[in-house]
Amino acid sequence: MLQKPNRLTLVEQVTKQLEQLIEQGVWKPGTKIPPEPELMDQLEVSRNTLREAIKALMHAGMLQTKQGDGTYVRAASAFGPALQRRVRKTDALQTFEVRRALEREAAILAARRRTDEEAERLRHCFNQCSIALDNNDNDAYAEWDMQFHRAVVEASHNELLIEMYSHIADAMQEIIKSVAPISDQQTITALHLQLLQAIEQQEERAAEQAVHAYIHLSQSHI
Amino acid sequence: MLQKPNRLTLVEQVTKQLEQLIEQGVWKPGTKIPPEPELMDQLEVSRNTLREAIKALMHAGMLQTKQGDGTYVRAASAFGPALQRRVRKTDALQTFEVRRALEREAAILAARRRTDEEAERLRHCFNQCSIALDNNDNDAYAEWDMQFHRAVVEASHNELLIEMYSHIADAMQEIIKSVAPISDQQTITALHLQLLQAIEQQEERAAEQAVHAYIHLSQSHI
Repeated sequence: MLQKPNRLTLVEQVTKQLEQLIEQGVWKPGTKIPPEPELMDQLEVSRNTLREAIKALMHAGMLQTKQGDGTYVRAASAFGPALQRRVRKTDALQTFEVRRALEREAAILAARRRTDEEAERLRHCFNQCSIALDNNDNDAYAEWDMQFHRAVVEASHNELLIEMYSHIADAMQEIIKSVAPISDQQTITALHLQLLQAIEQQEERAAEQAVHAYIHLSQSHI
Repeated sequence: MLQKPNRLTLVEQVTKQLEQLIEQGVWKPGTKIPPEPELMDQLEVSRNTLREAIKALMHAGMLQTKQGDGTYVRAASAFGPALQRRVRKTDALQTFEVRRALEREAAILAARRRTDEEAERLRHCFNQCSIALDNNDNDAYAEWDMQFHRAVVEASHNELLIEMYSHIADAMQEIIKSVAPISDQQTITALHLQLLQAIEQQEERAAEQAVHAYIHLSQSHI
């Protein structure tokens, strides 16, 4: 049988191979990839070819090079970095609306699918928020508030939703550093408690309503 | 003043420049980019360098080459292609849940922000759905049903949400070819009418409830 000629350049072929290793989780985010000589040897390509392939994946946000150390996997696919880049170019209100859409859906799914461990984790984050509030500790409050929201989204058991929310939340953190004033934090805490209880008791509609209410409140700060 | 040396390779520099032209809309999706000799001349780079840069943007899904014709802009950023690729690796239920999240939010925003032209466009799509249903024309029904949903999302006036929805809908179309059985189409049409009227009358809560109901119905087909 005749085979279609391979029209990919050497750099493209190497890029694709490295990308697959990352996407399939052979090379995991946060780990260092093998050193150049080893890869050149295995792939039977020149240093230049390998470097261009690595640069292409750096451009896509999947790899990053640390001077004098080596090359690390930064993201499991090109999707997260591309989403973050897109969010940074979007105005805060629009991003907030998309984030709200994901949180609302996540609350419904969390009420349906949460495990007991996830419910406990949520309760823990909520308690830490309350303690921070009592101590007037804004930094701790902001941190545990974020953990609470991420825990809700993770309890949705929807990987695509979790990944989207996580990248949007990361990108938003760069944009919105400020926390709601303490007066509102009391009200938001009461609504978080409503959400927590709805998820604990697996009441989807109540979970959605709690999200609706606290989002309505926090939107006034954008 | 000393300047930091430029650590980018030639290919990277050219890639970045081409990417910016696309992202800034100087080169628009669907149009052909200038021929190679012209770009080599303007950038003062070799054919090989230019070609590697173009390949990098093809890899990111932003450019595509048509044999014997030229190179075309395929997407305004790397985000859309990366999202579609991510969706193709996700199971249909998870994608459906994310799409639902976006539709629900879009319905609320459309009720708030729709222009009169957008309300008319929605009414037109709805009418075409009804005609297709009367004629038992499944293809026309599927087409106008899709147009109706896209029109709702576009009336949200949220560019990020519109872009996400559009790429998810495109990727889902490849996955789900089948249409709901005619019996359900009658019920779905009634719910679409509810949504249309809620958006026309700018009633956010009613719009959300209509989306909630038809999504609940169509989910049973996944």
